[in-house]
Amino acid sequence: MTSTDAAPLAGADLSRLSLNQATIKYADLETVVAECVRAGVPGVGLWREPVAEYGLARSADLVRKAGLEVTSLCRGGFFTSADPGERAAALEDNRRAVDECAELGTSVLVLVSGGLPAGSTDVDGARERVADALGELGPYAQERGVRLAVEPLHPMFCSDRCVVSTLDQAVDLASRFPVEQVGVVVDAYHVWWDPNVYQAIERAGERIASYQVCDWVTPLPADVLLGRGMMGDGCVELARLREAVERAGYDGPIEVEIFNQGLWDAAPREVVDLTVERYRRHVW
Amino acid sequence: MTSTDAAPLAGADLSRLSLNQATIKYADLETVVAECVRAGVPGVGLWREPVAEYGLARSADLVRKAGLEVTSLCRGGFFTSADPGERAAALEDNRRAVDECAELGTSVLVLVSGGLPAGSTDVDGARERVADALGELGPYAQERGVRLAVEPLHPMFCSDRCVVSTLDQAVDLASRFPVEQVGVVVDAYHVWWDPNVYQAIERAGERIASYQVCDWVTPLPADVLLGRGMMGDGCVELARLREAVERAGYDGPIEVEIFNQGLWDAAPREVVDLTVERYRRHVW
Repeated sequence: MTSTDAAPLAGADLSRLSLNQATIKYADLETVVAECVRAGVPGVGLWREPVAEYGLARSADLVRKAGLEVTSLCRGGFFTSADPGERAAALEDNRRAVDECAELGTSVLVLVSGGLPAGSTDVDGARERVADALGELGPYAQERGVRLAVEPLHPMFCSDRCVVSTLDQAVDLASRFPVEQVGVVVDAYHVWWDPNVYQAIERAGERIASYQVCDWVTPLPADVLLGRGMMGDGCVELARLREAVERAGYDGPIEVEIFNQGLWDAAPREVVDLTVERYRRHVW
Repeated sequence: MTSTDAAPLAGADLSRLSLNQATIKYADLETVVAECVRAGVPGVGLWREPVAEYGLARSADLVRKAGLEVTSLCRGGFFTSADPGERAAALEDNRRAVDECAELGTSVLVLVSGGLPAGSTDVDGARERVADALGELGPYAQERGVRLAVEPLHPMFCSDRCVVSTLDQAVDLASRFPVEQVGVVVDAYHVWWDPNVYQAIERAGERIASYQVCDWVTPLPADVLLGRGMMGDGCVELARLREAVERAGYDGPIEVEIFNQGLWDAAPREVVDLTVERYRRHVW
């Protein structure tokens, strides 16, 4: 242990830290796992594409043998097409994602619900199709020990990625289904600006399936998807939000998920070490 | 009148249309005024900088002689500094903006409230300083026949431009003060994504001081401030929102305000003609 002036905070011991592999996107799965083990990070959030590339059973085996917990799988969703064929394909793809969660040993399937179909202005219709899909998939997920975790995305993604734009809306959606089937993701990046976020977190309660962190930095880059910053580089009250999700009853993993070209271009080891340092300093 | 298959809609006669001069940003004030007159646009929204450049009294005279209504002045605000000197300067600047409204004959001062001060993460504090400023400025504005119009900006601007992020929040803020002193702006671009926007508009009622339109288009450009699209190019339900503000009791000007490099690079006349055409087709 490093000596510090202040007494260490409970939790700052990394026991709840999880590294989402997208934070070191260009590292292969073996490197991700090795880096987590080296740095004492006990959890890892995985993405379907790199898992498929490495092989599902092989990925599950790798992570299990390393003693890591898979804290989430990204991602299902994209439920908003009004075309019956596309809709059926999306549902089928989400069932596969649920199966992958079960094999990887995680109960959390993160859902990016989908934006408006091309040319459509019917945001209410798109939102209702998300609810329909949750209703269809919920029982399938529950039977496999997986919870559908609806992630509200920042409103700047409403038209093209996710029509679920606030935590309150995600909780409204989730609450139409059994709590074992549908939860919500609280991602600090997406919700920090919301004047109602603390009430929404309290209301979310046991629906909270995941707490994710990174920071809001400006200016936004041309591809706003890559605008996330390392914790401490921006203006999000990460510790306050963590305390709020804890008061709401959530004591699960805290997953660091950052899409940032600068971090992707850096050495994975540096990024992991920085993640640990910033997690200790800014989340706790 | 052009012949059409359908009966013309009430309002599609342009009687409520206003052109915000930022839509043809590079046109000088005389061109803006001449273009409005030529195209039969009866209202114009002005900005302080070009008005100051042309001269305040001269601007007022120009617009009055052309028979145009000044539907708003942009902009006051930037209330969030915690530094006493900066705060006093902001209040003084806003009093000048109120005076300018009075001279130009508009009752609407649009407020962009300000983002987080550099290095700050205290969004609640910044929001409270906005309320404090409204309280200080409200009586001054009312005495001059001007209403402070709080504009909620899209949450992607929360950190660097405006900590007022939803219409509900703007209404909450405004409602702490007399209705003659503080109103809200409903700008379709900033609020369309909000799952709660229609309830918020109903609740806003007589607080609505202005309805502004443009469209949400993706991908967002590197400077997201310039990401606005011409009506009909995006996914905003402009007619539905107009109907909602009308049901809430608003029957005032509908102001077209678009920051878009492509439109700025086009001939003002083309942009004004396109604005009129798209207004008829997509707002009505």
